Amino acid sequence: MHYQPRPEDVRFLLNAVLDAPTRLRALAPFSEVDDALQSQVLEEAARFVGEVIAPLNREGDEVGCRFDGGEVVTPPGFREAYQAFVDGGWPALSAATEDGGQGLPTVLEAILYEWLSAANHGFTMAPGLLHGAYACLKHHGSDELKDRYLQKIATGEWLATMCLTEAHAGSDLGQVRTRATAQADGSVRVSGGKIFISGGEHDLTPNIVHLVLCRLPDAPAGPKGLSLALVPKVLPDGARNAVHCERIEEKMGLHGSPTCTMRFDDATGWLVGEPGRGLAAMFVMMNAARLHVALQGIGLLDAAWQKADAYAAERRQMRAPGPVPASRGSEAADLIAEHPAVRRILDTQRAWIDGSRALAYRSALMLDIATHDADAKARERAQRWCSLVTPVLKAACTHQAFHGASECLQVFGGHGYVREWGVEQVVRDARVTMIYEGTNEIQAIDLLVRKVLPDGGAALSAVLLELRDTLDASREADADVQRRLAQLRYLGTTVAMAAHANPVLPYEVADDFLRVMTLTLMAWAWARIEVAAPADAGRTHAAAAFRRWVLPEFEMRLGIVKRACEGVALAHAAQAPQEASR
Amino acid sequence: MHYQPRPEDVRFLLNAVLDAPTRLRALAPFSEVDDALQSQVLEEAARFVGEVIAPLNREGDEVGCRFDGGEVVTPPGFREAYQAFVDGGWPALSAATEDGGQGLPTVLEAILYEWLSAANHGFTMAPGLLHGAYACLKHHGSDELKDRYLQKIATGEWLATMCLTEAHAGSDLGQVRTRATAQADGSVRVSGGKIFISGGEHDLTPNIVHLVLCRLPDAPAGPKGLSLALVPKVLPDGARNAVHCERIEEKMGLHGSPTCTMRFDDATGWLVGEPGRGLAAMFVMMNAARLHVALQGIGLLDAAWQKADAYAAERRQMRAPGPVPASRGSEAADLIAEHPAVRRILDTQRAWIDGSRALAYRSALMLDIATHDADAKARERAQRWCSLVTPVLKAACTHQAFHGASECLQVFGGHGYVREWGVEQVVRDARVTMIYEGTNEIQAIDLLVRKVLPDGGAALSAVLLELRDTLDASREADADVQRRLAQLRYLGTTVAMAAHANPVLPYEVADDFLRVMTLTLMAWAWARIEVAAPADAGRTHAAAAFRRWVLPEFEMRLGIVKRACEGVALAHAAQAPQEASR
Repeated sequence: MHYQPRPEDVRFLLNAVLDAPTRLRALAPFSEVDDALQSQVLEEAARFVGEVIAPLNREGDEVGCRFDGGEVVTPPGFREAYQAFVDGGWPALSAATEDGGQGLPTVLEAILYEWLSAANHGFTMAPGLLHGAYACLKHHGSDELKDRYLQKIATGEWLATMCLTEAHAGSDLGQVRTRATAQADGSVRVSGGKIFISGGEHDLTPNIVHLVLCRLPDAPAGPKGLSLALVPKVLPDGARNAVHCERIEEKMGLHGSPTCTMRFDDATGWLVGEPGRGLAAMFVMMNAARLHVALQGIGLLDAAWQKADAYAAERRQMRAPGPVPASRGSEAADLIAEHPAVRRILDTQRAWIDGSRALAYRSALMLDIATHDADAKARERAQRWCSLVTPVLKAACTHQAFHGASECLQVFGGHGYVREWGVEQVVRDARVTMIYEGTNEIQAIDLLVRKVLPDGGAALSAVLLELRDTLDASREADADVQRRLAQLRYLGTTVAMAAHANPVLPYEVADDFLRVMTLTLMAWAWARIEVAAPADAGRTHAAAAFRRWVLPEFEMRLGIVKRACEGVALAHAAQAPQEASR
Repeated sequence: MHYQPRPEDVRFLLNAVLDAPTRLRALAPFSEVDDALQSQVLEEAARFVGEVIAPLNREGDEVGCRFDGGEVVTPPGFREAYQAFVDGGWPALSAATEDGGQGLPTVLEAILYEWLSAANHGFTMAPGLLHGAYACLKHHGSDELKDRYLQKIATGEWLATMCLTEAHAGSDLGQVRTRATAQADGSVRVSGGKIFISGGEHDLTPNIVHLVLCRLPDAPAGPKGLSLALVPKVLPDGARNAVHCERIEEKMGLHGSPTCTMRFDDATGWLVGEPGRGLAAMFVMMNAARLHVALQGIGLLDAAWQKADAYAAERRQMRAPGPVPASRGSEAADLIAEHPAVRRILDTQRAWIDGSRALAYRSALMLDIATHDADAKARERAQRWCSLVTPVLKAACTHQAFHGASECLQVFGGHGYVREWGVEQVVRDARVTMIYEGTNEIQAIDLLVRKVLPDGGAALSAVLLELRDTLDASREADADVQRRLAQLRYLGTTVAMAAHANPVLPYEVADDFLRVMTLTLMAWAWARIEVAAPADAGRTHAAAAFRRWVLPEFEMRLGIVKRACEGVALAHAAQAPQEASR
């Protein structure tokens, strides 16, 4: 079976849980994005994704991309599907109308990309970087560069890459060595090697626009010496630029996307933004890019869940314990969906999907608010949410994509391990999302060390207090969430104090801290969903599974972080008398 | 890099932690298995595994098995390696000398197979079922069958399969439909289809002995109507039997092992054991087979760990927080092994490997004691341990193989996702161990519903009290383990009581109960290891990681099970007054 998006599921979250239409209409560019328009976009997107993109997924994995003398041939059907994608205006969904885009809210684009990833992760990698390149160029490019490239990228006519990683510089971009040399005509010549470049070469578009992290002569060592250059595959005069794909990687999954090793041999390019401000130019789209990966995770988990749910509703094995299920009829064995172990997997993964969707869509709304709200304070609040919540979602949703898809595989028993049902592909494809766009360990450090600790937990507190204001303490579920919000706020301060005595501590407990925050946010999301949908049976089961099987990790992780902080305090107390006696 | 077994690691566990040499010498057949002999076997095994088997692993994955008109061609080098394996006497390590075996203890064979699986899981599947087939035939086969097949199987001259699963009968073997019809000459004719048959066809040995679960005419429905037939590929007169491989599966991993769909068309066979006692005949080797899978899990995790540990000791990225590490020298970036997030992964997985090794080797010793001890009570105690602990190890070690290998992959960042370093293969290969030989969910139900609850937790209590007797409460770590043992005993009784009111409950919390027991056993193992090796730095780090990051799951799972039982009690109490008032 192919993935089929279900617009009614996400519309429920947008309308009943997040009040998205009202919030969007309050933003000037979206004053006419009403529920009818939103529904129409989602219905069309669902149809396109289900009919055009999803059917290519399996062959994309099995045939994969082929490297042939510097050229990359994408899997069967990808070229035609990409053309249909461009013709439908899908790449330009959230790009400004003056750049050839549709001017729609980020949140709709987010849902589109979640579905695309669910349907065909490999294919989706190709246009997945378009919006980032568009935003980067729009904010930092010269007028000349924008004239030449912005519309081509916004519409997807030309695809784009981000060339960051080098063999010795993965998470550590400060070590990038690719050189750029300024020319008299204002261009630069770029030389060096890049690895792990998604879509570095392919046959989907006639030109490919590379954004290359590089170093000018005499630039200081480390991240502050980095600049960003735009290097097109085909130069404005139609000549082929000196940028070449040397090979593509053999990977665990994601075979539909070519992961290229690129060589720049005095290739012609132009700086984007100021010299030495390359990282800043790239980081403008960091939150959007990381949210994009979180949405891939959600989509992939939903893809695995759809398969497992359908299989469990057909496959019969053994009698289920307890009362005779209505589905038994005269069958000797019951549907595996009636077995508690299978039920638990399906309900738990459903809980992750819906809860993290609510959080991710809220973050997408916040991106729109951060850009478009007339009120500076509102923009600032939205920016603060994005800054703190994005690393949490990137790590949590991709972790769950891999681990939850593996649980869904388990529903199939031995059939899950063979290709036939497609669920093992989801597990393989999902694994990379825990690594790219900053490993999940780096997300955890980003959250705790860079976002929470510098102001002693103040920004975290502010975000959590805003969430508290959405709750009604007279409801038991809401009161429980309030307690957790308070515990997390207190934990932020506790770690901040312990970090003074032991600066290594935050690095040791960063993962646990991120999980405490993940589960707090999920608890908030589920409290909101339950208020919005008190009578829906599927959601009630998922909510129960969340409280029963997922949420207990909150106390476990909280305990781990607290004990680590207590250990620091004890060590400090033990040391103090010695120091005093010296 | 290829996997290289480290005999000193396992010898420490056997000698210092488990006192294996003394315990083995007390058993009549092993009175001469002294430390010197044991060491010699382990050193030779390590050399053979590292030099002959490990180098074939990657090509085994990449080339895989090829199906060609009913024949299966194994990957390059497998035939020669298997011949060397047979010539070295390795298949016959624990088989009785009178059957052509070496008559060595099960625990040495266990270690051999752990290493083989670590080095090359796909290859190891071929001889992996030999011992089970040998035990089954030895206990249940007629003298004629034994004369013809026992020695061939014991020595590995002919390989064997277990043909259980059918398309509609996976976990639910009662639904098996393959028919066997008795013939006048005492043979049976077998017809039907089997799926997921590991090594159902291959080019490693001139004959393949299939043990086939089947149903005689007029046999009752369900598991009690099942018989077991031996069906050879080549008949005693040299003719090809009517058993054929129809295709092999495309799988997520384990490409070195052909997973065959088999067709029996009135194939000639002979019953093994009584008609209708087929499951009993197969289940004689159930504990050994499940322990074997647990050992695969341990081996695969160690394989991933070795790779990650080596990579972390070479790869440099960013400065580590805290004091300057000695390894920094003049380098701009530190070894990733110095980063807390990487250190945590490596130490935690080391804790799983050593702890579960201690438990698995203890179980292998218990298998030997259950068979060979002169004292019936000792045999019974050992049998009880195996019965209760085997499902725990099967589930826990295979769970950790997949999830821990994925953590090790994370150490490599993007390099872990590509084939080059081989760690993604371990993740793919490991995934199947959570499914075959009974899914991990079925192990959990086996433990709680079939082993713990029927006697109200008495057998569990007995096993745990024996463990308590090995502890010294004056040591803090031992006292902590004693508390957990008591909590687990009490939990067994609590669930038993709650199950009376709600028979579905045990199926809902079986996974959590198994994890509580897993962590209790692991805590015991680590307390023993620490006593035996107080000064070893690597083990001290692993022990600290275990207490800090792994053990907190104990309280979480305990809480989940307790709350479920309390929920049952509350529901019961709420119902009682209503019933009284009727």
